[in-house]
Amino acid sequence: MTVSEIGEPGLLERVFPRLPESRATVVGPGDDAAVLAVGGGRVVATTDVLVEGRHFRQDWSSPRDVGRKAAAQNLADVAAMGGVGTALLIGLALPGDTELAWVEAFYDGVREECGPVGAGVVGGDLVRSEHGITIAVTALGSMDGREPVTRGGAKPGDVVAIAGRVGWSAAGLAVLSRGFRTPRALVDAHRFPSVPYAAGPVAAELGATAMTDVSDGLVADLRSIAVASGVSIEITSDVLEVTPQMRDAAAALGVDPVRWLLDGGEDHALIATFPGKIELPEPWLTLGRVVRGRGVYVNGQPSDDQGFDHFR
Amino acid sequence: MTVSEIGEPGLLERVFPRLPESRATVVGPGDDAAVLAVGGGRVVATTDVLVEGRHFRQDWSSPRDVGRKAAAQNLADVAAMGGVGTALLIGLALPGDTELAWVEAFYDGVREECGPVGAGVVGGDLVRSEHGITIAVTALGSMDGREPVTRGGAKPGDVVAIAGRVGWSAAGLAVLSRGFRTPRALVDAHRFPSVPYAAGPVAAELGATAMTDVSDGLVADLRSIAVASGVSIEITSDVLEVTPQMRDAAAALGVDPVRWLLDGGEDHALIATFPGKIELPEPWLTLGRVVRGRGVYVNGQPSDDQGFDHFR
Repeated sequence: MTVSEIGEPGLLERVFPRLPESRATVVGPGDDAAVLAVGGGRVVATTDVLVEGRHFRQDWSSPRDVGRKAAAQNLADVAAMGGVGTALLIGLALPGDTELAWVEAFYDGVREECGPVGAGVVGGDLVRSEHGITIAVTALGSMDGREPVTRGGAKPGDVVAIAGRVGWSAAGLAVLSRGFRTPRALVDAHRFPSVPYAAGPVAAELGATAMTDVSDGLVADLRSIAVASGVSIEITSDVLEVTPQMRDAAAALGVDPVRWLLDGGEDHALIATFPGKIELPEPWLTLGRVVRGRGVYVNGQPSDDQGFDHFR
Repeated sequence: MTVSEIGEPGLLERVFPRLPESRATVVGPGDDAAVLAVGGGRVVATTDVLVEGRHFRQDWSSPRDVGRKAAAQNLADVAAMGGVGTALLIGLALPGDTELAWVEAFYDGVREECGPVGAGVVGGDLVRSEHGITIAVTALGSMDGREPVTRGGAKPGDVVAIAGRVGWSAAGLAVLSRGFRTPRALVDAHRFPSVPYAAGPVAAELGATAMTDVSDGLVADLRSIAVASGVSIEITSDVLEVTPQMRDAAAALGVDPVRWLLDGGEDHALIATFPGKIELPEPWLTLGRVVRGRGVYVNGQPSDDQGFDHFR
């Protein structure tokens, strides 16, 4: 049996029981990030690997774009726990013929993305590979006294809300895949996301009961909250915006733009559940509600989106 | 200019000024590990990337060996700061035809190596690659009130000492490279190191002034202490043991086994400098002394070993 035959969920099922437990664990593997108790404080830790050809293409993305994306998707995981990113460690495996200018621009992108968050790069490893660029980023963050928000705490009666945009990256990818380079806003959104970092800690302070970021798709990631919390989630799609550019691109490509909103990943919006009586500040926008049961319902219909399998 | 043309030191010189700084940094990039201030405590963080074909070969190492090695070299970096490893995050990029059994045995190896240290695996990422296995491990550790020991604090008059063995991995690699599978002890030492983890925190408590682990070679890593500290280091090689197996293997291969001791990497012994009057407990063994000047001297002769360049 190979990893592509068993697929990602099956693989995780076989791997998780083998993992040694850490005495410092507050939140263990399986959520957006782990949380560890360290010296009276709590540190958030998460890691992502980006493989050239699968997670980025050099003909579609500049090295600066790749650096921003690599930093952003890890810093988004920290925000999705209610943390603030403080430090990155970056492992790079590079073919020997990689241009020095590529590496420099990659780190420039990392620095740009870290700036508003206040995170730094504190370590890394540079090694040679034979085939393509592989990037491994670990982000560390601090909770500053907030309780970590996992995917597992949503309760019937909670409100479901979103901060940030969805569908943009998927629309950009669709455009690029057909050989176009415009609309620029969509293509740029695929190159690196625009993450509402501050909304994560704000949600934790407001008492969010569950949270994650939209990396695999809105419905797929809502489902991860529904499954982890043992609840059902009902949303309406009409509060999500199909922008004029999205509508035009969808018309040109002959697709339904609402699928981008519901199934498109990699925009790293934050989605969270809150006790029903909390007034949500911007940019949080109410999407629906948590009810008893299971599954995700969109406009009253059950959704069977299964999300993205990294091995299939 | 490509990365293999500029080489590792040149690449680092170009990358370091581009790295954003973290407000939490106690020890920044360039040492064995970073140290961050988190909630009143200090967390050690380090990352290493292993590329199939460069850092391990499936025909020489079992997946369990690879798991042990990947965990060990990161936990050794934590020990070399005087820390104790608490948590690993592991990113794996795997070809789709990787056997599930390989992945399971890899994590079994990680678990075995973590056991005595008490570290756990708290997170990770599993993605598909097109070419070969790439492994990115980040280790986090705690200082438990000890001061981190960098490479930069050695002072003239200090004693230079070593804990753990050197030359074993290089001897094993030499044997494997010639197509042999024995002596088993040397070959096994190449497959995964035997790291004296506890000696790191002990050294920090004793007041070690500088410390690192032997990943590139004894002389090369002593040189990294000499350069960072602005001192010269003098050692004698006769306190290092050429084992009977090493002597026999060297004779069979027609090489000088002392080169394995001085230049062989990947055994992850710890080397440290201590104020001259401290009585060193086992397994610490005195190798030489720190003097004014620059460079590393072995048995009175200047050594020009340049260490291992990951890009050349």
